[in-house]
Amino acid sequence: MSAPEIWSNTRIRSTPFTSRIEAYGVGAYTVYNHMLLPLKFVSVEDDYWHLKEHVQLWDVSVQRQVEISGPDAAHLVQLMTPRDLTRSKVGRCYYAPLVDGRGGLINDPVILKLADDRFWFSIADSDVALWALGLAHGLNLNVKIFEPNVNPLAVQGPKADELMSRVFGDSVAGIGFFGFAHLDFGGHPFLVARTGWSKQGGFEIYVDNDDLAGPLWDALDEAGRDLEVRPGCPNLIERIEGGLISYGGDATIDDNPLQCRLDQYCHLDADIDFIGRDALRAERDRGISRAITGLFLDTAALPTVRQRWTVRQGERRVGDLTSAAQSPRFGRGVAMAMLDRDCWEAGTRLTVDSPNGSIEAEVTAIPFE
Amino acid sequence: MSAPEIWSNTRIRSTPFTSRIEAYGVGAYTVYNHMLLPLKFVSVEDDYWHLKEHVQLWDVSVQRQVEISGPDAAHLVQLMTPRDLTRSKVGRCYYAPLVDGRGGLINDPVILKLADDRFWFSIADSDVALWALGLAHGLNLNVKIFEPNVNPLAVQGPKADELMSRVFGDSVAGIGFFGFAHLDFGGHPFLVARTGWSKQGGFEIYVDNDDLAGPLWDALDEAGRDLEVRPGCPNLIERIEGGLISYGGDATIDDNPLQCRLDQYCHLDADIDFIGRDALRAERDRGISRAITGLFLDTAALPTVRQRWTVRQGERRVGDLTSAAQSPRFGRGVAMAMLDRDCWEAGTRLTVDSPNGSIEAEVTAIPFE
Repeated sequence: MSAPEIWSNTRIRSTPFTSRIEAYGVGAYTVYNHMLLPLKFVSVEDDYWHLKEHVQLWDVSVQRQVEISGPDAAHLVQLMTPRDLTRSKVGRCYYAPLVDGRGGLINDPVILKLADDRFWFSIADSDVALWALGLAHGLNLNVKIFEPNVNPLAVQGPKADELMSRVFGDSVAGIGFFGFAHLDFGGHPFLVARTGWSKQGGFEIYVDNDDLAGPLWDALDEAGRDLEVRPGCPNLIERIEGGLISYGGDATIDDNPLQCRLDQYCHLDADIDFIGRDALRAERDRGISRAITGLFLDTAALPTVRQRWTVRQGERRVGDLTSAAQSPRFGRGVAMAMLDRDCWEAGTRLTVDSPNGSIEAEVTAIPFE
Repeated sequence: MSAPEIWSNTRIRSTPFTSRIEAYGVGAYTVYNHMLLPLKFVSVEDDYWHLKEHVQLWDVSVQRQVEISGPDAAHLVQLMTPRDLTRSKVGRCYYAPLVDGRGGLINDPVILKLADDRFWFSIADSDVALWALGLAHGLNLNVKIFEPNVNPLAVQGPKADELMSRVFGDSVAGIGFFGFAHLDFGGHPFLVARTGWSKQGGFEIYVDNDDLAGPLWDALDEAGRDLEVRPGCPNLIERIEGGLISYGGDATIDDNPLQCRLDQYCHLDADIDFIGRDALRAERDRGISRAITGLFLDTAALPTVRQRWTVRQGERRVGDLTSAAQSPRFGRGVAMAMLDRDCWEAGTRLTVDSPNGSIEAEVTAIPFE
């Protein structure tokens, strides 16, 4: 049997860039926030090396924006995350876990502070707008919450600065890490942030003008010919090596941000009010019992991970592998797993049950080094 | 270029039936509620005729359950829908639009009343649990909200009664339309409802036991050999002909249930308190300005609808086509469209702009007859 096709429709939206990437040749899609996300162009390994050496254009329209604005916006935004945003600044991006009353992870967006009373949540794969709408209704807050028509285009890779400055000018260099500015293209001010879901550096352009989406793509494509620019996408190997968790896969609402190693974004003792504070404090005081950990896998032929694989120490089940890829850099498999606390020490030898049989594994810290 | 593949992973979950349908040969998938939903086996047209003549097993695990239980459960459930559930009964299913404060459609689940203080929402494609959690937190309600491990298996088609009675016994016949009962298979009581996303009749089995999921599938498959049972899935042609809307495609949070022709489930004058009541009453009093309407399309070669197509009357834009399929029964295309009110009259001639050029269209009521 050939691999099943994916069929998109009006429920699974295409993007302003879909025609470009399909003309180039996209090899595989997934669906993310009810929208198409490319997963492969040439091959995952070829895409990986290209990303680490050159520059790529990523259609990450799936990173939908949830806009929260109005008199109570700042209050609601702080309620939604354990990250202390008291001293947050307009023009900055904040990676922020969102948690429910039990401390469970609802999403891990980047929050853009557009104004003191206006925010965008650039979200991972769950309907954050519904959570925010429910809270706002229940708490009777004066806010407006909706999904604006914004389709992020990421420019990622070591040559991203060069390419972006050719299209947007020298002011690109002035954007600091997790900062953003409004830069002109085609007479329209685009929000450009120095962010992105890779560790290779780069930018995300928040494309809020459908008419200019195609011309912007084409301008970047043309300006980058000698930089070997090409379409790309979040790369499974690179993001695992870099320790970027995929919400819904590596962590769900049944996990809390401490288990996801997001302690630095959880200001549990700050003088702020947020949902889940008591639960997270209790979890911290108790000590987390499981956490996301890296694994090296001693194999040269890794099956695709379609469901979580059991991780064992001898016969004892000690956790689940949640993502894995064959790493060209390390010459073995790299994986993320949610493991019990007595297995976290780097070097611990474990066994993973894959559909093709058991694989020997070694615990390591993430990001992989 | 060959069609892009779909890649599933731990974020896009497979189901307890995935191995069965892949062994048989599934031709296309979509993603629905973060999970794989098959869309084609032999061909959409062949699947259509088979569904209308025989009986099919549908892996509709994607119809996730949101369980709401506890002392305030009935109160929260009624708040979430304009359908009057005051006299709802345990053992019954209720198709119910869910709306936000502006009357916008959040989902259109079937609500199963398991007990006076325990409900399942069998949901369409949006994270209803987050909406419910937000409301419960904001209103400080005493409820428990979570997604249980339930994977519905639908048995659909005119021979469904015969097949189900062979596996579950004669008590199947006693289940009324939109009723449910607990019937034994393999020593486990399965919730069996006379419901399903087709107009051909049949059942949905709420499979809450992973160990018995495979054996149950196999038992139905084996018992139905002479009934020509085979794997199937919600069928694009059949569901459009039958007038079943697809949430997220034919209607979104920007549409209200009156526009979706769900008036009979909106008890706006009942003595109940629900979110969006004022907005829906105002919309009713004003008169809706657009609504979902059927279209016949004068074409023998319909392109796939990947994005909404503009519908025109002459040069004037009067709406959007949201779903379409070539109907073997009518010998032309059948479509759903959201149209302005002055175009609703059956027989009105309109023009649809497809990617392959314009198509002449004729307004008709849904379901198609």
